[in-house]
Amino acid sequence: MTYGSADSAPDSPAPAAGHPSAVLDLLGLLAYAELVAFFRLTDNAELAPTLAAKGELAGLAATEYAHYKRVHGRLAELGADPEEAMGPFVEPLDAWHARTRPQSWLESLVKAYVGDGIAGDFYRKVAERADDDTRALAQTVLSESDRGEFIAAHVRAAVAEDPALAGRLSLWARRLVGEALSQAQVVATARVELASLLTAEEGETESEPGDLAAVSRMFAKLTDTHNARLEAMGLSG
Amino acid sequence: MTYGSADSAPDSPAPAAGHPSAVLDLLGLLAYAELVAFFRLTDNAELAPTLAAKGELAGLAATEYAHYKRVHGRLAELGADPEEAMGPFVEPLDAWHARTRPQSWLESLVKAYVGDGIAGDFYRKVAERADDDTRALAQTVLSESDRGEFIAAHVRAAVAEDPALAGRLSLWARRLVGEALSQAQVVATARVELASLLTAEEGETESEPGDLAAVSRMFAKLTDTHNARLEAMGLSG
Repeated sequence: MTYGSADSAPDSPAPAAGHPSAVLDLLGLLAYAELVAFFRLTDNAELAPTLAAKGELAGLAATEYAHYKRVHGRLAELGADPEEAMGPFVEPLDAWHARTRPQSWLESLVKAYVGDGIAGDFYRKVAERADDDTRALAQTVLSESDRGEFIAAHVRAAVAEDPALAGRLSLWARRLVGEALSQAQVVATARVELASLLTAEEGETESEPGDLAAVSRMFAKLTDTHNARLEAMGLSG
Repeated sequence: MTYGSADSAPDSPAPAAGHPSAVLDLLGLLAYAELVAFFRLTDNAELAPTLAAKGELAGLAATEYAHYKRVHGRLAELGADPEEAMGPFVEPLDAWHARTRPQSWLESLVKAYVGDGIAGDFYRKVAERADDDTRALAQTVLSESDRGEFIAAHVRAAVAEDPALAGRLSLWARRLVGEALSQAQVVATARVELASLLTAEEGETESEPGDLAAVSRMFAKLTDTHNARLEAMGLSG
């Protein structure tokens, strides 16, 4: 069983409560984001300076896999074909990773933290919009994301020791979010219902589909939460 | 706290019951084997023909990580430094992987099955020789290895569809085990107590340290269980 394809989405408005197709889109996006994060984090773990650090980053990757598995399973329970749901997001997410290959251990930590943070923002959207079981899933994933704090602490310690790193890593973080916004723009244009769900103000069910100002407002909000994460790592926006 | 180093091992025979240093060696070997299997399986998952298969192989890799984590934790509980315990096995295991890079999806499946099988033989040794808690750990890991059957089924199906594959994959499997035996020879020479634990006949606590005939007998036994695994995949030894 599959859900409506990308092409038919704008012509088939989702029921007011539940947004099935947009929520499935969002879950498809998250499932692929977790799977590809698993792969890229595992690559990056090879940059780790010690065997112990390598094991720690492998652990973060394994958690991404567990999240992928959970979202994948939920998509199947909802009657969607998980691979089909992930399909539209393969290219933009692969492109983001290809354009943001960490060149050092610290860059890979900053990327993991930033990427995880953005994913968290999306899980919060799932928690706001989806049915009870899917909300429970999003909350479980969010509750497992404290591990991000261990990364932030690592980066803070490195920056405290060598303050020259702060400028370089801040630039890197800016590039990470810039490239993410540029891919998000592609997705927002192609997946109008998903964009409408993501850009809805609190209290609203959705913004008007194709509302570009709403997309810009969401990007501004993403940038705000990103800046908060930078500060947590001792970097600046 | 750490246990005796490689150099001192032959001069400091382990207590008769328990073989602490040899058992810690074996756990260190398994911990690093699982960690590196996690990394290499994740690389190989990129060869998967579909997104679904990619997710499945990522799942196998995540299981290797979970096993690594368990063995790593047990080493720490036993008072060993897990990274130090893994240290002597980094080079031979990395060498094995470097000399056996799969060139195709099917080669990566055969490698995963063969590698997992050899690890299983070693976990069974742990189960025979170690204390109760460590034995329980080995049994848990072994009970989670049914997943190997899904790999064997995949390979069998591919070989049934294209019988020409059988010869090529059988050769590949022979190379896998040949390279493993050559690395095992290096380890057996450097880690005499470990070799003595591994080569002990059933009922014996250990063979005489440095007994080369015992090492050869163990290799013969490894080759036997390897051939049984080949048959399970529809290949020949």
